Amino acid sequence: MNSFGRQFRLSIFGESHGERVGIVIDGVPAGIPLSEEELRADLDRRRAGAKGTTPRKESDEPHIVSGVFNGHTTGAPLTVLFRNENTRSGDYSNLVTQPRPGHADFVAREKWHGYNDYRGGGHFSGRITLGVVAAGTIAKKVLGEAVHIESHILEIGGHTAPAEMEAAIEQAVKAQDSLGGIIECQATGLPVGWGEPFFDSVEALLSHALFSIPAVKGVEFGSGFAAARMRGSQHNDPIIAPDGTTGTNHAGGINGGITNGNPLVFRVAVKPTSSIAHPQQTYHFADQRVEELVVRGRHDACIALRVPVIVEAMTAIVLCDLALTANLETPATTPPARG
Amino acid sequence: MNSFGRQFRLSIFGESHGERVGIVIDGVPAGIPLSEEELRADLDRRRAGAKGTTPRKESDEPHIVSGVFNGHTTGAPLTVLFRNENTRSGDYSNLVTQPRPGHADFVAREKWHGYNDYRGGGHFSGRITLGVVAAGTIAKKVLGEAVHIESHILEIGGHTAPAEMEAAIEQAVKAQDSLGGIIECQATGLPVGWGEPFFDSVEALLSHALFSIPAVKGVEFGSGFAAARMRGSQHNDPIIAPDGTTGTNHAGGINGGITNGNPLVFRVAVKPTSSIAHPQQTYHFADQRVEELVVRGRHDACIALRVPVIVEAMTAIVLCDLALTANLETPATTPPARG
Amino acid sequence: MNSFGRQFRLSIFGESHGERVGIVIDGVPAGIPLSEEELRADLDRRRAGAKGTTPRKESDEPHIVSGVFNGHTTGAPLTVLFRNENTRSGDYSNLVTQPRPGHADFVAREKWHGYNDYRGGGHFSGRITLGVVAAGTIAKKVLGEAVHIESHILEIGGHTAPAEMEAAIEQAVKAQDSLGGIIECQATGLPVGWGEPFFDSVEALLSHALFSIPAVKGVEFGSGFAAARMRGSQHNDPIIAPDGTTGTNHAGGINGGITNGNPLVFRVAVKPTSSIAHPQQTYHFADQRVEELVVRGRHDACIALRVPVIVEAMTAIVLCDLALTANLETPATTPPARG
Amino acid sequence: MNSFGRQFRLSIFGESHGERVGIVIDGVPAGIPLSEEELRADLDRRRAGAKGTTPRKESDEPHIVSGVFNGHTTGAPLTVLFRNENTRSGDYSNLVTQPRPGHADFVAREKWHGYNDYRGGGHFSGRITLGVVAAGTIAKKVLGEAVHIESHILEIGGHTAPAEMEAAIEQAVKAQDSLGGIIECQATGLPVGWGEPFFDSVEALLSHALFSIPAVKGVEFGSGFAAARMRGSQHNDPIIAPDGTTGTNHAGGINGGITNGNPLVFRVAVKPTSSIAHPQQTYHFADQRVEELVVRGRHDACIALRVPVIVEAMTAIVLCDLALTANLETPATTPPARG
Repeated sequence: MNSFGRQFRLSIFGESHGERVGIVIDGVPAGIPLSEEELRADLDRRRAGAKGTTPRKESDEPHIVSGVFNGHTTGAPLTVLFRNENTRSGDYSNLVTQPRPGHADFVAREKWHGYNDYRGGGHFSGRITLGVVAAGTIAKKVLGEAVHIESHILEIGGHTAPAEMEAAIEQAVKAQDSLGGIIECQATGLPVGWGEPFFDSVEALLSHALFSIPAVKGVEFGSGFAAARMRGSQHNDPIIAPDGTTGTNHAGGINGGITNGNPLVFRVAVKPTSSIAHPQQTYHFADQRVEELVVRGRHDACIALRVPVIVEAMTAIVLCDLALTANLETPATTPPARG
Repeated sequence: MNSFGRQFRLSIFGESHGERVGIVIDGVPAGIPLSEEELRADLDRRRAGAKGTTPRKESDEPHIVSGVFNGHTTGAPLTVLFRNENTRSGDYSNLVTQPRPGHADFVAREKWHGYNDYRGGGHFSGRITLGVVAAGTIAKKVLGEAVHIESHILEIGGHTAPAEMEAAIEQAVKAQDSLGGIIECQATGLPVGWGEPFFDSVEALLSHALFSIPAVKGVEFGSGFAAARMRGSQHNDPIIAPDGTTGTNHAGGINGGITNGNPLVFRVAVKPTSSIAHPQQTYHFADQRVEELVVRGRHDACIALRVPVIVEAMTAIVLCDLALTANLETPATTPPARG
Repeated sequence: MNSFGRQFRLSIFGESHGERVGIVIDGVPAGIPLSEEELRADLDRRRAGAKGTTPRKESDEPHIVSGVFNGHTTGAPLTVLFRNENTRSGDYSNLVTQPRPGHADFVAREKWHGYNDYRGGGHFSGRITLGVVAAGTIAKKVLGEAVHIESHILEIGGHTAPAEMEAAIEQAVKAQDSLGGIIECQATGLPVGWGEPFFDSVEALLSHALFSIPAVKGVEFGSGFAAARMRGSQHNDPIIAPDGTTGTNHAGGINGGITNGNPLVFRVAVKPTSSIAHPQQTYHFADQRVEELVVRGRHDACIALRVPVIVEAMTAIVLCDLALTANLETPATTPPARG
Repeated sequence: MNSFGRQFRLSIFGESHGERVGIVIDGVPAGIPLSEEELRADLDRRRAGAKGTTPRKESDEPHIVSGVFNGHTTGAPLTVLFRNENTRSGDYSNLVTQPRPGHADFVAREKWHGYNDYRGGGHFSGRITLGVVAAGTIAKKVLGEAVHIESHILEIGGHTAPAEMEAAIEQAVKAQDSLGGIIECQATGLPVGWGEPFFDSVEALLSHALFSIPAVKGVEFGSGFAAARMRGSQHNDPIIAPDGTTGTNHAGGINGGITNGNPLVFRVAVKPTSSIAHPQQTYHFADQRVEELVVRGRHDACIALRVPVIVEAMTAIVLCDLALTANLETPATTPPARG
């Protein structure tokens, strides 16, 4: 439910306006140098600040309360906590009677019989991803320097040129509306053989993690949907060297669910933020009819701007788990033991 | 690795040219009427036969060897076996030295140090999906008649009109080439509240299952990638009735990872079959250079044609698992027991 | 590794002398009234204080930071934190070079290559069970009033009479030595049918949880080891009523791994505390020879005295998980949905 | 439910009088030499034949249908099937109305609403352990020759001398009654550091597996229940060499849930077979009163005689899983990859 991973295992918790959000990471190998300071760079990339992001400012200070001793990971579960500081709970109470379109307000109330913490989206808030970003930083350290993961904005509101993206965001903010976007991510330095056939394929596990990010509505690997319009003779990547290097990379670095040594490439579609101040017609449960809703509060006009670092984190987490599994050594081949 | 699900749990096994492929399904509720006969309809939809599918013909007879007694499921694990009959192992031996581009030949050999069963793709064969289709039929029965799942071909080789699709396939077959396609799937009759936040969201679990199907390279829910080009005011689905019915369905029936009572809608991109007779340049490991490869054997020119029933099966499997979890009753509310 | 359970799922973390220990509980149903106050009763039973328990006093204040809103569980993950206050880290540093016999000092150092937090046993400390006790209280509430779980001390140091137990403890404290004990636990009010065949049998899951408690070295159900000396005609419990009531209860309430409606009864053997001030001969890694060790610090002379409430907690946790699974409703039998 | 393990993962299935029983083993490393012939030695040890075992004779021929190619494991799931040949279903039909005391007849009917396969105990039959024994043989091969696992009968009906055991069995057979027993198992050659703290401790996982074996009612490690009557100064095992060798082995080779390099030692209590021809009084559901029951059919007078090889198998399975996990290599320390 709120946990993920086999050998590198996450448990996330918290609500937008609760006391804390956080994560427990089980399976972190011992001996990795780690400080709270090192977690900050990725967390800062996730923070609001740019035009198009929410005016709610949080310090997002990570607080490691277990699993690190004398500046190194211990092998025991590693817990990172974040305090929710800048909450304005009064903003949200009316959304119980008139749930926001596109948001989880309605389903959360139905699923949990009205007991859900509805303030700021409660457990459905993007703030839960703070722990994911921290786990991603740690996963990157476990993977080591040979593996390099990088994601960037490919499109905002259908625009690909930086200037046009910026203009579109400005316009959306003015219109009290929101925009979606597409993120591309690439991971290099992967050996051949990570991933398992079928249910633990790279695509299966990675899409599982990516679709867990709020607002993600599409994932494609390599040529993705465009592959459906190609011929085999165009799509197949010819192997051109004994290490598996291919001439093209339509497969996005994966064959049969397993890394083939070429760069892992995929794209993620992020829908426009659902919370908009622009007036919307939607059902009012007290008045029992459709009425206008104006969502107040502080929201991102384009949540996609903050997603790249989360995509990287999820990628690092999945690759780290697959790497730990793939690097299993047969006990029979290890040096003999005493007994 | 080869298992999936929490309460409705699959374990799949087998190789293309091994003795049998099959599936063990754990968690099937007791008392559901079931016969081998009932499994045939979906299995027949998966079978080859149409133009563009492989000339390899298998009877695909399902054989239930546990978990059914007196025509009903027993509550114990249900096992379905299929015999591989029509195998021609001689076709494949040369692919060890010259792995097919786009196929798992190379990664399987590397991952398993040359011990993989390479005949017909071995464990990476589409034949493994026979068990998935059988499990899907059973999952549909567990879900009951209120839930209706249906998927269909949306595009083949970029064409959406039936006549054009057929012509394109005919042309590809002639050219000894292959085509990809896009499948759309819809599930209706779902209540509000299936799915869990974050890692067990409907999108996360369903994409996990769908990307496990060989050849799938993209998955999108509702408006999907198009959502990234919409404004929030366009994308948000207004709620128009107290049961959660929305005026539009850009979300594809899911908010916050949880079913909202509207039809679940998603699309799946299938790449063109990688095994083509069309000559390809690729690395020859014995000759240590790039050489021409002509893949012999019997292959589907358009594997997408056989995927819709597998997509339906995966959907039924995931929904069944989520339904069983969502319908958990708090023990405290059950009638008091003796003791 | 540090997580357990299928539908009622725990993740534990923390070290004896770290900043905090705690637990994340996933799968708590929504709508259960809960306050920090209610967690205190069981936590107090676990606390030191009686003769034979450690002089280290901690307030053991539970702090709920997620999953509770307006006095009720929300359905989202529930996190309870505890602060470590009364730590004296100076006591333990010498144990790195001369690991205590019977303790995890040596294996932790080897397993984690010297990166383990060795202070007070680090992650191997009994303090980690604070979260388990909190989870047990919540599990009892989920199970409801019909189910009653109670465990008590059966033996201390081989004595069964309260006065003799007390005298033995006093004597052990004087001798700077320690004692073991046996706990018996009984759960009544269980319906027929909780537990699954084989790997999720009541005995399998419960023993898994019980052997996770530090110092537990034996578990037996019903007649247990004595059953091995009985004849079938003596051991078999005759059914004497249509609800499954048996005339005797040698099976301890379980047949085929599944509750039979009679009281669940089992016993747990707890070894004597390994940390004793009594001088011991053991290996000194710096001096490279066996030398005398006197363990300083504050320890329980009889840890078994504090274990009953932890045994109850583990029982409640396992039964809660099995109950949630057993109460799954077939979706097909639920009221039809809209769609 | 019917699956177990993290990296070396079992799924078992089948019923006593169904067509087949079997097992799917996921996570078997590639390249291990394996034939059906090699599975026979352990399967033969499990077979009936000696005095005190059932006259039902089965060939117990293992049939590998996936995961082995050219005499070696492939890395893909390995499936072993067994045919049920010598079934006499007529023997059992009356047990629906008068369930056997001590057996799962009553709970299976209640749990599965009468849909359970009741013939020969159905899924609760000891025949399901055939697959476990096969998996154990494979796990032993994965562990390699350095690890040696051996279990033996310690007691039958309270007797420890071979001659007395035999006499007791003869007497029980004559009396149409049954006997229990105690099995001891020892594993040597284990390195320091297998097992994880808390929920994946050696004791937790091993007891989970052992209590899954039908008829097991008690498990104790090292001194076990006797430890509860010892003082710390007696029970603590002094370390006498830098490799962790201890002077005594009261801990049974485990500290803090983790192997300490000394022999792993534990004992398992097996109850007397519940199916006895000796007349028993128990409830008759059609006549609605307690009546005499004489269980016909072919049964073991002392099932404990057949359990040692199953205990060994479960031990090998758990150790193999822990070994694979413990031998995980940090990806950062593996040779750099191309990309």
